[in-house]
Amino acid sequence: MSRFWNENTKKIVPYTPGEQPESLSETVKLNTNENPYGPSPKAAEALRTLDFDILKRYPNPDAKDAIKTFAKMNGLDEKNVFAGNGSDEVLAFSFKAFFDGKKKVYFPDITYSFYSVYCDLFGVKYGTVPLKEDFYPDVDALCNVKGGVVIANPNAPTSIGMPLEDVVKIIEAHKDDVVIVDEAYVEFGGESAIGLIGRYDNLLVVRTMSKSYSLAGMRVGFAAGGSELIEGLNRVKNSFNSYTVDRLACIAATESLKDEEYHKETLEKVVNTRDRVKKALEKLGFEVKKSSANFLFAANKSINAADYYEYLKDHGILIRYFAKPGIDSFVRISIGTDDEMDKFLRETEVYLNEKSANRKKH
Amino acid sequence: MSRFWNENTKKIVPYTPGEQPESLSETVKLNTNENPYGPSPKAAEALRTLDFDILKRYPNPDAKDAIKTFAKMNGLDEKNVFAGNGSDEVLAFSFKAFFDGKKKVYFPDITYSFYSVYCDLFGVKYGTVPLKEDFYPDVDALCNVKGGVVIANPNAPTSIGMPLEDVVKIIEAHKDDVVIVDEAYVEFGGESAIGLIGRYDNLLVVRTMSKSYSLAGMRVGFAAGGSELIEGLNRVKNSFNSYTVDRLACIAATESLKDEEYHKETLEKVVNTRDRVKKALEKLGFEVKKSSANFLFAANKSINAADYYEYLKDHGILIRYFAKPGIDSFVRISIGTDDEMDKFLRETEVYLNEKSANRKKH
Repeated sequence: MSRFWNENTKKIVPYTPGEQPESLSETVKLNTNENPYGPSPKAAEALRTLDFDILKRYPNPDAKDAIKTFAKMNGLDEKNVFAGNGSDEVLAFSFKAFFDGKKKVYFPDITYSFYSVYCDLFGVKYGTVPLKEDFYPDVDALCNVKGGVVIANPNAPTSIGMPLEDVVKIIEAHKDDVVIVDEAYVEFGGESAIGLIGRYDNLLVVRTMSKSYSLAGMRVGFAAGGSELIEGLNRVKNSFNSYTVDRLACIAATESLKDEEYHKETLEKVVNTRDRVKKALEKLGFEVKKSSANFLFAANKSINAADYYEYLKDHGILIRYFAKPGIDSFVRISIGTDDEMDKFLRETEVYLNEKSANRKKH
Repeated sequence: MSRFWNENTKKIVPYTPGEQPESLSETVKLNTNENPYGPSPKAAEALRTLDFDILKRYPNPDAKDAIKTFAKMNGLDEKNVFAGNGSDEVLAFSFKAFFDGKKKVYFPDITYSFYSVYCDLFGVKYGTVPLKEDFYPDVDALCNVKGGVVIANPNAPTSIGMPLEDVVKIIEAHKDDVVIVDEAYVEFGGESAIGLIGRYDNLLVVRTMSKSYSLAGMRVGFAAGGSELIEGLNRVKNSFNSYTVDRLACIAATESLKDEEYHKETLEKVVNTRDRVKKALEKLGFEVKKSSANFLFAANKSINAADYYEYLKDHGILIRYFAKPGIDSFVRISIGTDDEMDKFLRETEVYLNEKSANRKKH
């Protein structure tokens, strides 16, 4: 604590992202839901061949090219799309623009843990709605709360997707409040609400280039929604930083969006690997939630999840463990390449055998 | 106005940056204080030869390489340096971390107009201290206010630099409050307060890669200060967006900082052109403030500044005019290449001759 911090700075508890090891080459990194396949070769080529002299000029303040491309691909008008420095920034602006001490917001008790952090940062009042026992969101309860709603679909870290009809129920139950659907992982098998824009002016869909488009390193995210919501986001953004998406990020995002063929190819590989690894883990006695994302949420009654996480870490494999009541028997495993996942499965098997041998000894 | 916006979103008046014309090649762009010379060729080479596969991975959350390099160059420890997505973001985080409805902040009435916008966005109470008649900051008045202080040194849009002894007076008068010195333009001839870090724990110096380092398009800014202030900034940043500086921005900043020779060369060219253009404008009857920055602040009693700005715009030259009482007889002219400035001076001369001929006619 410092006497120079204001009361809010003293109070906030920052979000903790997954570890970023110094040397990437020595680690099998399955802890931050990155895509194991690189970005579009066309995006890489556009970056490589750029005349970097242009970097002396400020970027377009609205990341126009990226917005134009995203809008076109989703059948939207440019006035329905906002771009930011990663979907985390887009979400932060959304919480700042639409909710506050009076405009309360609700989200499931187990979801992306940054939501409550934004609330604390901006003085937004929030409530949480417990997931049901099977980790599926409690749709009725989310319909009955009075205020805005934020849902991640598919949800993190549970990996579970919600069919569109349940999303519609929530949107319709909150016509006077903003409903944010965070679709960071939707491309891996979720049902997107983006087609509902135009029908519901209270709907804001948030997307990211970090996951399925393999651009975590470039920080580009989008929001799509009614023009009033987009204008609200622009008001906040333009009161914070005129140019949040830099020139190279804008190019990387635009060219990656355009390369639909490569995107589809990458998605298929990740989804196939995910489904194979799910089966393999189940064979090893794990309970694995049905995943609509690029990660698996798994528990095994015969082991301690924290211990299993530490064991893998010691053996060069990073997964994610959350010491949070309700999910502390689970681990979250991002889907890597087939080779990486085979190494993960091998080490898991060794770990399970060791534990089993120890149990027999005692 | 939208019923979905919270009260603050309805109230804020976003900052207006200088125009960014669609086609840069046809415009002489002297309106946003960009550097006319491109970024370091070594930075460009580092970008060009990168294996872009790495963009699939999140960046280091603290832009470690850039911070390390900035710290080393300025004789600081890494714990005394913070990096953000442009100095606008660094300033936004600073206002959010250190000031609020109770911790009031003061700045000159004529300065970077984003400061009051941050205050409105984050509910920070602020007061303004009028510049003296010659546009020099009123140091005594800035010492006597009760609260934090923000000064741009050199100041914008006036271009006037403040000697270090006046900055020290202000810092010493506010030992219990944060004093932010925004040094966006300091490399062009100002006196930096960065050497005072360590002596004053209430001092935060803000720097940018957008101006003297020609990286406006990449959005990297720094803050340097006592470790408690840096920790406060990190608390806010990590409650807003875990990764604000993308991989390519971090590389561009790091390599540009290291290329000191190129930086010095570029600075000399800009400063020489600035001093030549100042003299030329004075010959044409302008009053030109003594500039320690990469722009000139000039007025000419025989003309209307708004009309002069419009005339130049119609002739493909963008400068900046502020319709603000006290400075509405002035224009701000960024320093371009010698060719660009010659074109600007020629058009200015034509304009002055036309005005003079019109006056004789009537």
